[in-house]
Amino acid sequence: MSERPFTPLLDTVIVPADLRKLKPEQLRQLAEELRAEMISAVGVTGGHLGSGLGVVELTTALHYVFDTPDDKLIWDVGHQCYPHKIITGRRDRIRTLRQGGGLSGFTQRAESEYDPFGAAHSSTSISAAIGFAVANKLAGKPGKAIAVIGDGSMSAGMAYEAMNNAEQAGNRLVVILNDNDMSIAPPVGGLSAYLARIVSSRPFLSLRDLAKKFANKLPRPLAEAARKTDEFARGMTMGGTLFEELGFYYVGPIDGHNLDHLIPVLENVRDAKDGPVLIHVVTKKGHGYAPAEAAADKYHGVQKFDVITGEQAKAPAGPPSYTGVFAKALMAEAERDPTIVAITAAMPGGTGLDKFQQKFPERTFDVGIAEQHAVTFAAGLAAQGMRPFAAIYSTFLQRAYDQVVHDVAIQNLPVRFAIDRAGLVGADGSTHAGSFDVTYLATLPNMVVMAAADEAELVHMVHTAAVYDDGPIALRYPRGNGIGVALPETPQQLEIGKGRIVREGKKVAILSLGTRLEEAMKAADRLDAQGLSATVADLRFAKPLDQALIRKLCATHEVVVTIEEGAVGGVGAHVLTLASDEGLTDAGLKIRTLRLPDIFQAQDKPEKQYAEAGLDADGIVETVLKALRHNSVGVIGGARA
Amino acid sequence: MSERPFTPLLDTVIVPADLRKLKPEQLRQLAEELRAEMISAVGVTGGHLGSGLGVVELTTALHYVFDTPDDKLIWDVGHQCYPHKIITGRRDRIRTLRQGGGLSGFTQRAESEYDPFGAAHSSTSISAAIGFAVANKLAGKPGKAIAVIGDGSMSAGMAYEAMNNAEQAGNRLVVILNDNDMSIAPPVGGLSAYLARIVSSRPFLSLRDLAKKFANKLPRPLAEAARKTDEFARGMTMGGTLFEELGFYYVGPIDGHNLDHLIPVLENVRDAKDGPVLIHVVTKKGHGYAPAEAAADKYHGVQKFDVITGEQAKAPAGPPSYTGVFAKALMAEAERDPTIVAITAAMPGGTGLDKFQQKFPERTFDVGIAEQHAVTFAAGLAAQGMRPFAAIYSTFLQRAYDQVVHDVAIQNLPVRFAIDRAGLVGADGSTHAGSFDVTYLATLPNMVVMAAADEAELVHMVHTAAVYDDGPIALRYPRGNGIGVALPETPQQLEIGKGRIVREGKKVAILSLGTRLEEAMKAADRLDAQGLSATVADLRFAKPLDQALIRKLCATHEVVVTIEEGAVGGVGAHVLTLASDEGLTDAGLKIRTLRLPDIFQAQDKPEKQYAEAGLDADGIVETVLKALRHNSVGVIGGARA
Repeated sequence: MSERPFTPLLDTVIVPADLRKLKPEQLRQLAEELRAEMISAVGVTGGHLGSGLGVVELTTALHYVFDTPDDKLIWDVGHQCYPHKIITGRRDRIRTLRQGGGLSGFTQRAESEYDPFGAAHSSTSISAAIGFAVANKLAGKPGKAIAVIGDGSMSAGMAYEAMNNAEQAGNRLVVILNDNDMSIAPPVGGLSAYLARIVSSRPFLSLRDLAKKFANKLPRPLAEAARKTDEFARGMTMGGTLFEELGFYYVGPIDGHNLDHLIPVLENVRDAKDGPVLIHVVTKKGHGYAPAEAAADKYHGVQKFDVITGEQAKAPAGPPSYTGVFAKALMAEAERDPTIVAITAAMPGGTGLDKFQQKFPERTFDVGIAEQHAVTFAAGLAAQGMRPFAAIYSTFLQRAYDQVVHDVAIQNLPVRFAIDRAGLVGADGSTHAGSFDVTYLATLPNMVVMAAADEAELVHMVHTAAVYDDGPIALRYPRGNGIGVALPETPQQLEIGKGRIVREGKKVAILSLGTRLEEAMKAADRLDAQGLSATVADLRFAKPLDQALIRKLCATHEVVVTIEEGAVGGVGAHVLTLASDEGLTDAGLKIRTLRLPDIFQAQDKPEKQYAEAGLDADGIVETVLKALRHNSVGVIGGARA
Repeated sequence: MSERPFTPLLDTVIVPADLRKLKPEQLRQLAEELRAEMISAVGVTGGHLGSGLGVVELTTALHYVFDTPDDKLIWDVGHQCYPHKIITGRRDRIRTLRQGGGLSGFTQRAESEYDPFGAAHSSTSISAAIGFAVANKLAGKPGKAIAVIGDGSMSAGMAYEAMNNAEQAGNRLVVILNDNDMSIAPPVGGLSAYLARIVSSRPFLSLRDLAKKFANKLPRPLAEAARKTDEFARGMTMGGTLFEELGFYYVGPIDGHNLDHLIPVLENVRDAKDGPVLIHVVTKKGHGYAPAEAAADKYHGVQKFDVITGEQAKAPAGPPSYTGVFAKALMAEAERDPTIVAITAAMPGGTGLDKFQQKFPERTFDVGIAEQHAVTFAAGLAAQGMRPFAAIYSTFLQRAYDQVVHDVAIQNLPVRFAIDRAGLVGADGSTHAGSFDVTYLATLPNMVVMAAADEAELVHMVHTAAVYDDGPIALRYPRGNGIGVALPETPQQLEIGKGRIVREGKKVAILSLGTRLEEAMKAADRLDAQGLSATVADLRFAKPLDQALIRKLCATHEVVVTIEEGAVGGVGAHVLTLASDEGLTDAGLKIRTLRLPDIFQAQDKPEKQYAEAGLDADGIVETVLKALRHNSVGVIGGARA
């Protein structure tokens, strides 16, 4: 662990009110101390570093100028909120970031009144800010809402929908476009090219420009008269036509690391009578920390690291990650089948498609943070004979649910959804926990939903999705590493809707979907040791269910337990529905379903989260024993008339 | 029924190849005949009329110039596809539009090779067209993709996401922006204002302008040399900076009813080497039919009507619609509580909020076709103390699923989702069938999901949602009219998670969620008549379930049947899960769940669709009798070891 940095000025700032007591000329030092403190903290915890480094000055300036928490400051995605947390009363817990019981890695309403809106998925900030602004307007309250949104997040449709409605918020809305030319991966798309043209075609506004534009001496607000003139409005609008066309006043570009420029601009915008205003601020991700600036990903997300060298702790050697296995398997399929193409929504690294892209650049499509487009684009490709794999995290696919229903499932098109981060994800917490995909997908007609029990199964499933010549298929797999089984030399084509029996027993049947299979096997061993002979089946498919297998196991066992890494309504519910349709439980068969609990679980290590949910060997054994103990006749027999 | 129009030229056009044999000077007559035929057909069937009338000339010109079906013509939303259907081999069935067994009211891949992509939700066309274009590019095939999208649809985020990615399609992509200044309701938002500025600030391109712009004689394509020059590119781009900024060549505005202008422009764009191109075409919704032009909604969706007078068949007098009851109930709540605000995504009429808006203009927000923004905007309002009701159809809420999860449910904010069109919808078919909302909402922690059994219940539920002082609530209700029960003078606050017993019996319990309650009561009468004493309960809540009620009914009845207007994973699955968790079925209780089938049902009258699904009194009785006949001991007892 590195030593704590020396931060005499920061030590005096517990909350933003303390910050506002400082003189403007002290802010640079404060920012430097804030940066050092954040680097030190993330060195201990790991987490999102690059984006926070890029907004140290912006964070300082925003809290200095605006009256937080009454003015609502909303950080889009929340990756960049660590400096904000440090100066809003949470410095004492900053070294618990992303740990179980610690601070969230994102903004969170429950954590602080300075987090008016939680965020962890991108591009929500402008909509939320308009909500705050309009609520204040209707209530006749003062109070602005400031959304800080990256250029990458601006590629998402919902940011555009919000901009299209910004006028409703009037001058209560300030949007800070934090243009670092990078979200997680390099930028893509027309908007990004457009922003680059703005930035390259005109220099930063200088102090002199600013003085001219704001028509008065700095840093005080403009005189009332000048402010009302149309010239003021014009002065604020230069170059940003796209934003102007949607109804904003555009100010920029501004150097986002220059407090002498940021403060007067923010002060003037704060006091503007017209609005909404968009301030185009240019920052550098990783700014002020050499190892981050030098890294290709600008230390977007890092492990614990040595502050002096920047060297990150290596993950312990182990089996390959599911993400890596997926990417490698897909590349093998793509070698064979030229119709296979891959689509990512701004996550080439996270989905493993960066490797696919190196090999098949023409067949890889990074559409930006645009899941809705990604899915319907895939549907169009599939309709014209291609075999698209849309690799999207479980929770991000929620962004494209209607497109999955309307464009893929109803049309029965052979789009393949490679759903990474299915199940609990650990440090990212509930916003990234892939808890709902089985439920929201398996309810759809035409949809095939499979889940890999281990990395070898994933290879078979990628192959199956590649060669199966019919409608949509979703295949889900978790964050993290496989369990170390050998990868198949030649992948098998799995029969759609067929599970497999992994272990034969007589009294108890455990039906597993996904990677809880290991725990199911452990539970079976323990049950056997107690004289309760246990069968374990890997269902492989949540839809279509292996009806024959389930019928057989229900007919030949006393207790059937399902287990899955998902919420209610998933494979357990589908098994119960089948059993109920066919009367399989009518003679007293005991079925129990293990699933995620009906709460949003806070971040922690995934195994702890699963244990808390009862989704481990202990939970299975306990469920079986309790079911066997359950004196069903006593409960029901007496009461029935 | 009106007489068929006289259409000598249209009679020679079965498919677009026939159209292409005509001389350009014949096209105007063809368009007139096409318009007359469409008016006549919709007079018989009812349906979407205004949008089709607005694109008669455009439809004619597109099929004349482009090589359909090899060039892919994609109509956004599909409301406007009736003229397209008439000249693509489906005229013989055009008077079956939207009827059971007849033509779909939207484009549908299964129906014709001229419908390359089905659509019924808005704003998907550009993404799909890019998919087609890129697939052709990768396969080295010729073939363009043409998306025709209205200005209203352009307000949706996914259209923007697609435009941001249009460059990948190159000159294979043509986007026709059909600007009729109106989608279903009058336009809202910054983009709409921007388009209006373009159209008002410059006259239509004249023939002379076109000649100049395309630098050659019309209507033949430009000479190769001229085409390659940058001047050509510049000639095509005037005024449409927003689209240019996203990477398009912009052509327009063009009079969309003038074939002499449309044809040469389309020919030149077809042959352009650079791209993508966006053609800004201005049309009038309802054009060429006086009653439609005169109507406020331009006959967006009509009943059967008299072609001469335009007078629409009146719906038979009956109970008020659920939509109307909702709106009235919400207005009463809003009188009492100034924090209640209402949000619609471009459906003020369809949701009944047009009436709310008349009374509370400052508290009504039409955000355009922007469900994602609508939900997160509502979350922001709720976080700042307002009580927002987001009134969104069941299938359109799918567009905002991630926002429901991430911004509302995880943050436990008191947003109210008023979900109209829950359950089957009839003529609009599977794309609009609200089959999945209970499943995709009730799986979420913190969410309350209720369904109204009749219009009086809806009033209670609106009141409950208004006064309940905690997290999110969804309330669902169907399309169509109530059943005629008296509306309560004073609405009750329902206890969250409590159902009600509507009818007491002993042997069979029917648990109903939603408006199948009527059928459940009929079924109970019939069962009683057969000596099978039946209890009927209205669950009211899919989440939280009334556990005490369910426990009691399970303990005191031999057969329990659930019924709901939704797909698998809904309330039936939740009841089964509870029963299984608690071992309620262990002693041989028979539970059965009735739900929508695992297919996307085609359009028909809702009652026929429900009968087909077994969700009526017949289906309930049959299920109960079959369950009672089921010799469970024989089935399972013998097989178990």
